Amino acid sequence: MRILIIGGNGTIGNKISQYFKENNDVIIAARTNGEFNVDITNSQSIKDLFDQTGQVDAIICIAGEAKWSPFNELTEDDYYIGIKSKLMGQVNLVRIGQQYLKQNGSITLSTGILADDPVVKTASAAMVNGGIHSFAQAAALELENGHRLNVVSLGMVEDAFEKYKDYFPGHNPIPMQKVINAYVRSVKGKINGTIIRYYE
Amino acid sequence: MRILIIGGNGTIGNKISQYFKENNDVIIAARTNGEFNVDITNSQSIKDLFDQTGQVDAIICIAGEAKWSPFNELTEDDYYIGIKSKLMGQVNLVRIGQQYLKQNGSITLSTGILADDPVVKTASAAMVNGGIHSFAQAAALELENGHRLNVVSLGMVEDAFEKYKDYFPGHNPIPMQKVINAYVRSVKGKINGTIIRYYE
Repeated sequence: MRILIIGGNGTIGNKISQYFKENNDVIIAARTNGEFNVDITNSQSIKDLFDQTGQVDAIICIAGEAKWSPFNELTEDDYYIGIKSKLMGQVNLVRIGQQYLKQNGSITLSTGILADDPVVKTASAAMVNGGIHSFAQAAALELENGHRLNVVSLGMVEDAFEKYKDYFPGHNPIPMQKVINAYVRSVKGKINGTIIRYYE
Repeated sequence: MRILIIGGNGTIGNKISQYFKENNDVIIAARTNGEFNVDITNSQSIKDLFDQTGQVDAIICIAGEAKWSPFNELTEDDYYIGIKSKLMGQVNLVRIGQQYLKQNGSITLSTGILADDPVVKTASAAMVNGGIHSFAQAAALELENGHRLNVVSLGMVEDAFEKYKDYFPGHNPIPMQKVINAYVRSVKGKINGTIIRYYE
């Protein structure tokens, strides 16, 4: 399989890329230092990426950001950071990416537990995650050529837990093997329109 | 109670307004033909509204739109219709409205079944509904002064069913009494951060 991983050199992206590289042709794209560079907030940059990669069997996105801040400090513009990146960046990846996806290919997006079980300072981050869940369920109804679209929504992952644990009091870290398996279920399975939730 | 209903002259808004008018001081705002006119896509218009109404005990929003279109015809700009109106319009209502809300006051937003159970042509509409669900759960964690924030998410309501039933094959209409009760639960109850789902 030819698999494009956007955000393939981040904390999760690294593990996913290593796993798939064992038996697949993996292409790593990232904001910087990827085999290809892409800015997912910019549709033209996404198109340019696919013009360079050509057709693929699977697209995995583990990229996109949103502003974390106390609710009373989040400005209207702050919300648009997440809207342009993690929300519309991933929507545009599906819109544009499906044109470069082989028959029966899959797209896997990434969100997180905030969509369902938020913590403080995440009004904006939770919003974009929840938007992607509902978008994916809806868009999956209309995909053509056997294409599939799923979302991986994880709790705080083991490899990032030390860094983020103070933001998630009482949350349990997700073992990296389960993280990998979530993406494998989407790419290698037959599910479509599924939110793969691994919360411990 | 002094209750501001934005979108108070629409299909659902009319019924809600009639109910609350029996025992409350109800102010109707709408895009056109309200006691006060407001464009929720514009933060300044929202501020101007509250500067005119002054403090209220409850804010109910039954306004906001999104573009319905087949997934392959939705442009990036089309998604921003819903983002600016039903998504950020309601987010801005909470951001700004809380400053005009009395102690222990409530804000009630509106979404719909598409967030959880979408139909075709609703990739954009589902997205903004789902975004509001997660936003409200997160923002509710940080509200001050005893303020509460809930969302009413209904299936196709009885009064709009003839008009929309072809878009929702097999969906069951929600009786208008249940529609009213959903808003009453939020305004008169003590719940906070709840998505009140009435799907039949």
